[in-house]
Amino acid sequence: MKRLSFLVLCFLLCIATFAQQALWGNAPVVSPEVHENHTVTFRLKAPKAVKVQIVGDFTPQGVVEMVENKEGVWEYTTPEPLTPELYCYNFVVDGLKINDPNNVYRIRDVSSVFDVFIIGGGRADLYKVSKVPHGTVAKVWYKSPSLGIDRRMTVYTPADYETSGKRYPVFYLLHGMGGDENAWSELGRTAQIMDNLIAQGKAEPMIVVMTNGNAAQEATPGESSLGFLPPSMQLPKTMEGSFETHFPEVVKFIDKNYRTKANKKNRAIAGLSMGGYHSLHISKQYPDMFNYVGLFSAAIFPNKNVSSPVYEDMEGKLEVQFAKKPALYWIAIGKTDFLYKANSDYRKLLDEKGYKYEYFENEDGHIWKNWRIYLTEFAPRLFK
Amino acid sequence: MKRLSFLVLCFLLCIATFAQQALWGNAPVVSPEVHENHTVTFRLKAPKAVKVQIVGDFTPQGVVEMVENKEGVWEYTTPEPLTPELYCYNFVVDGLKINDPNNVYRIRDVSSVFDVFIIGGGRADLYKVSKVPHGTVAKVWYKSPSLGIDRRMTVYTPADYETSGKRYPVFYLLHGMGGDENAWSELGRTAQIMDNLIAQGKAEPMIVVMTNGNAAQEATPGESSLGFLPPSMQLPKTMEGSFETHFPEVVKFIDKNYRTKANKKNRAIAGLSMGGYHSLHISKQYPDMFNYVGLFSAAIFPNKNVSSPVYEDMEGKLEVQFAKKPALYWIAIGKTDFLYKANSDYRKLLDEKGYKYEYFENEDGHIWKNWRIYLTEFAPRLFK
Repeated sequence: MKRLSFLVLCFLLCIATFAQQALWGNAPVVSPEVHENHTVTFRLKAPKAVKVQIVGDFTPQGVVEMVENKEGVWEYTTPEPLTPELYCYNFVVDGLKINDPNNVYRIRDVSSVFDVFIIGGGRADLYKVSKVPHGTVAKVWYKSPSLGIDRRMTVYTPADYETSGKRYPVFYLLHGMGGDENAWSELGRTAQIMDNLIAQGKAEPMIVVMTNGNAAQEATPGESSLGFLPPSMQLPKTMEGSFETHFPEVVKFIDKNYRTKANKKNRAIAGLSMGGYHSLHISKQYPDMFNYVGLFSAAIFPNKNVSSPVYEDMEGKLEVQFAKKPALYWIAIGKTDFLYKANSDYRKLLDEKGYKYEYFENEDGHIWKNWRIYLTEFAPRLFK
Repeated sequence: MKRLSFLVLCFLLCIATFAQQALWGNAPVVSPEVHENHTVTFRLKAPKAVKVQIVGDFTPQGVVEMVENKEGVWEYTTPEPLTPELYCYNFVVDGLKINDPNNVYRIRDVSSVFDVFIIGGGRADLYKVSKVPHGTVAKVWYKSPSLGIDRRMTVYTPADYETSGKRYPVFYLLHGMGGDENAWSELGRTAQIMDNLIAQGKAEPMIVVMTNGNAAQEATPGESSLGFLPPSMQLPKTMEGSFETHFPEVVKFIDKNYRTKANKKNRAIAGLSMGGYHSLHISKQYPDMFNYVGLFSAAIFPNKNVSSPVYEDMEGKLEVQFAKKPALYWIAIGKTDFLYKANSDYRKLLDEKGYKYEYFENEDGHIWKNWRIYLTEFAPRLFK
């Protein structure tokens, strides 16, 4: 074993791309540490720092001071157990926001990279990778003639898709402003949620298609021909109609390349925030395309100054759409969402016209926690 | 436009999962900035820091001091232009290693998260996403009866796979110790390299299968049922034979689920470091399976203390393998690789027996730079 162990050691020393790694290694502190009672301790070894703080979606008061121990390790333990959820956080060291060097699990959202962890239990167990059959998650490129570029999407196919020979319904799931084709599969936990819901018999096996809603982008920043240009320099071009009018190209591509049930009865579309806006407009623009529509914290407002045929005659198009009686038109929003009033106004409009929809209201605002909840509520309603 | 702009602003403010983001936002400094002459400037705003350093694979001297300007922004500009390559780096702030907060492009390798950027030109252009047809990259799960778990792999299918109706040859590409099924598609740039080589007519369209060589793991840390447990606590179980003996299950799964040319003539296997070791042993254990074998900086040594039928009678098995005349047996290593002597000894053995192989030697050691080079050299040799 000696020889093997020596080799293993060499490997571990050499595996980084530069040999001086040992020089800048941090002491092995554990962070975050989730305790049995679901309180969580965060740690950072920074003996030369004057002030270390933590900020996360479990610190409603904002940034919170961490306390230094004798070894120069700064600590913070949540005063209360955390409820089941996927949490994001960062440290602030003498005013500099950094990721937790001891937590390699990070998710990028727009231009921020968050450290993440999950407190299990209840609904949050749906966000975990469980020992159930897993679907495939693929990064797939398609040609968009109308946008003039090759574009990437994320496609979830359910477990057994490859071998079943069956045809599947398709759920198109759209991200919000600043997001891209990675948003729903990363912070949205779509693959985990769908794997779990399908394994529990709560959702039908379905294909989930997560597009990039920024009409000017080929793909998420860093994975397009623009290379590692800062995300802020990769213009999205959104909410001006061209993403919506290109959408039939997406549906055509999916129906051509996957074993789909290629009809309205077996198609759903939903999105969060800007994706809700897209879903609203696409579903009324193409009233024979989607039987299920979900607006998650949707951006809803008149676009008087944006000129696109998509946004014209909104009420007339809604009339056509609702005359065709969609199987489900589902509106969800949190009580403190800054779009709450816009959604109330929109519901009022639907009520006045007598258009049938279902409404789901819960706590909190315009945050991923809610969008994951909405996905777990909406997906089980589809294709039944 | 006022209303739209206001909404856009709200979105941008609210898009993070916690509202106090503004409190800990850093000033917008650009880092890294690649200049026209290919020198690079790195910047970090940290007015309270006493010492800021940078370490990367462009700082052979180790950590290098950065210099603070009046605005509290620390800077370092490389003294010379950098040669074309994908580079990794980190900052060290008062002894604490951190990622560059202004560069959201990061790649994890084992337990380290590196900030990355690319200097284009020459071979490094193969590492970029180019405006060429793109293959699909899928995360696919398969059942391993012999290992008793569901396991994940990364599968690259070339552009047009979905619609061509054709059958394709398959290249199995294995990672090194500490890596997993994400290693080749991330730091290895496999999808970009294959897209570019195929588009240039230099490589045949092929399927590339990137397995997880840690027999005890379902998937890369963070994406298995172990959840966000630190990678160091997710035991790999490697180089004890069970990954090698389970490999026919992988080939069977791929041949069942993809349109492959399911014969030896159309199969290649290669790997880096531990993956080279796996490739060596798998290819001789199953001499009718692979016609092309690549050992990239391979771990080659007798396993006197590891008991597995795979490692028994090495010379006898090599005799059988080489009697069947593999189309290509390719050995590559860098001059300063800590495995250089082991590879020399192995070549001596092959030479003594008169077994035919090709040898590629270049500069540098046991680093990703070399493994990307080897992939760009090896892939064009396959299936021709």
